[in-house]
Amino acid sequence: MTTENQGVTAPKGFRAAGVTAGLKPSGKPDIALVLNDGPIRNAAGVFTGNRVKAAPVRWCEQIFGGTGGFSPAIAAVVLNSGGANACTGPAGYADTVATAEHLAAALDVGSTQIAVCSTGLIGERLPMDKILTGSTAAVAALHEQGGVDAAVAIMTTDTVPKQVVVAAGGFTVGGMAKGAGMLAPALATMLVVVTTDAVADNHALDTALRAATRVSFDRLDSDGAMSTNDTVLLLASGASGVQPSQEVLTAAVTRACQDLANQLLADAEGATKEISIEVVHAASEDDAVEVGRVVARNSLVKTAFFGGDANWGRILAAVGTSRAAFDPDQIDVAINGVWICKQGSTGEDRSLVDLAGRKAHVVIDLHAGVETATILTNDLSHAYVHENSAYST
Amino acid sequence: MTTENQGVTAPKGFRAAGVTAGLKPSGKPDIALVLNDGPIRNAAGVFTGNRVKAAPVRWCEQIFGGTGGFSPAIAAVVLNSGGANACTGPAGYADTVATAEHLAAALDVGSTQIAVCSTGLIGERLPMDKILTGSTAAVAALHEQGGVDAAVAIMTTDTVPKQVVVAAGGFTVGGMAKGAGMLAPALATMLVVVTTDAVADNHALDTALRAATRVSFDRLDSDGAMSTNDTVLLLASGASGVQPSQEVLTAAVTRACQDLANQLLADAEGATKEISIEVVHAASEDDAVEVGRVVARNSLVKTAFFGGDANWGRILAAVGTSRAAFDPDQIDVAINGVWICKQGSTGEDRSLVDLAGRKAHVVIDLHAGVETATILTNDLSHAYVHENSAYST
Repeated sequence: MTTENQGVTAPKGFRAAGVTAGLKPSGKPDIALVLNDGPIRNAAGVFTGNRVKAAPVRWCEQIFGGTGGFSPAIAAVVLNSGGANACTGPAGYADTVATAEHLAAALDVGSTQIAVCSTGLIGERLPMDKILTGSTAAVAALHEQGGVDAAVAIMTTDTVPKQVVVAAGGFTVGGMAKGAGMLAPALATMLVVVTTDAVADNHALDTALRAATRVSFDRLDSDGAMSTNDTVLLLASGASGVQPSQEVLTAAVTRACQDLANQLLADAEGATKEISIEVVHAASEDDAVEVGRVVARNSLVKTAFFGGDANWGRILAAVGTSRAAFDPDQIDVAINGVWICKQGSTGEDRSLVDLAGRKAHVVIDLHAGVETATILTNDLSHAYVHENSAYST
Repeated sequence: MTTENQGVTAPKGFRAAGVTAGLKPSGKPDIALVLNDGPIRNAAGVFTGNRVKAAPVRWCEQIFGGTGGFSPAIAAVVLNSGGANACTGPAGYADTVATAEHLAAALDVGSTQIAVCSTGLIGERLPMDKILTGSTAAVAALHEQGGVDAAVAIMTTDTVPKQVVVAAGGFTVGGMAKGAGMLAPALATMLVVVTTDAVADNHALDTALRAATRVSFDRLDSDGAMSTNDTVLLLASGASGVQPSQEVLTAAVTRACQDLANQLLADAEGATKEISIEVVHAASEDDAVEVGRVVARNSLVKTAFFGGDANWGRILAAVGTSRAAFDPDQIDVAINGVWICKQGSTGEDRSLVDLAGRKAHVVIDLHAGVETATILTNDLSHAYVHENSAYST
């Protein structure tokens, strides 16, 4: 292992591969495989809250023991781009099971030890001959520096592969993501695989993953939609021999997830702005998240940012649709450091706000308590409309 | 009164005017006045659910006795375009009160008999000299065929004035609207004034107006936002001498409101499609409304319609984010008569769907009960992004 080893194969005990099975018309890699060589094979998963779930999500929920949950022994994760296998009925579910069984045989494990993820168009069956041939090829291609190949193979309209490495006290956390998810679910998915060589039981992994996703992917809200396929998995090999405390493990997994979330934001389809909405002095964290989310999802706020317009009135109107505790006459709003709204009315000169750059920072002070939360989002641009109106054609 | 008399002056007992006060840079009419000459001056109002309320909404809630409610005697409604008077603090509220007092003196009534509505940019004070001079001019211009002048004066980016007349058994309902509202709240408002010469007490008017808005303006959901200024008023003069039953009154007011809602939809900013989303076989009417609304608000569904793409997968993914009762494997979806999704999976050939026209009709069959509801919305187009990113500059 070199210091350049990235992503899911950065921690010890993992191999990965990315191969071309011919699922994508472009001929680019489209099947990724991540294998946990142990000595332990613990895992946790968090899945989409959408009630219309793709076949691979239903399979994963089954083997992980529910919506979110943990499994005694996940040996490998196979991920395909080029098709979401969502809304494909019982036959589509059988396709997922067949994929798991095929890889289980090749890797000499049980089929319930194989997690499956898919991303791409909804409503079309996968070409199973290509999936199975490609899966066999992926097993043959597994190697200890294969993280980047896997990260490339799960890309859809992503412009760059997304990987992370976090070195903690004696153990490592790695990961890859494709985005999608709440960023651009035209692609029908945010897929994330996080790996670690820490020694951790399933309960510790589940605790760490839930805490991490709550303050990372769950606070990324680009267009308010939620995919049928969103999946975040955490696998532990124990190969470092180090068993961190829950606090240390959670912190490392959280850092990895936040880094990946920021990469997803930076590569969101058609966006010209990366907007962080920081809600401060909320009565509760839930209030802060709700206010951040209604602002992040408001089409008028998003188009204003696309237009370089520091339109605090639209932000206040969006805040007003939330159920959070606040007094409308007490709210302050700053954009890029300029408090353009004070006590619910006109504050500093809006022409002082510089919105020329790609990053924008909104602070909404509710003056209602001590809690805070930050939601990440993008603007609503011509390119967003273009990409999402032309996607399936 | 001629048969051409339209809008708010179609019922007997009303006069109206529209004048140019110089609030709009374009020099177009910007102050409307509707006067109820009686013999009765009953009224009901429904106001925005946004918690950030413009000064005129807070004034109206005050004189109508709360969020929605009825007043013993509303003599007149003054409406200005060219400024929303929202987020303008105590001084902005004082401006609204001054406007009411000015008109009350001119019309020789109490100031709490004057309803005030405003629409335009948020966060800027109104030029009160122009408002007061314009209000005086509006009083002088009042006449019995003034409905159309009033309807023109409340336009912002509306391309046509919106008026309605409904002839019922011996009485008439008229109305005007500007849209806006949930259609394009960049303009900060949907304003609607409905008039009738029926004899009806405040309670009957309130009952009729709530029933009517629930199945008209409340089911119009173009971009999911909610304005700081939305106001719907119903005034009764009693001049026909006819006192209809509650059922007949409600039916006539509902027809008027639905007609105006359809006019708002047809004139939504930057839209290329008028989309009706009919949810059938829902377990409850609330479920049907919720499902229609999440689909209507989904940016991916809306961009797909802009692209002429019969993307049922995005519709199903949106339905999956609702809390309504349904089994994902039982949902059917039709677009313009073609059942492209059956039992949650691929149905008839999507290429059979003709999306060339401006109107699109989606049917979502939940197979969960007997209730139904229809939500009206638009597509998400390049022009929407353009108009809303350039609005305040």
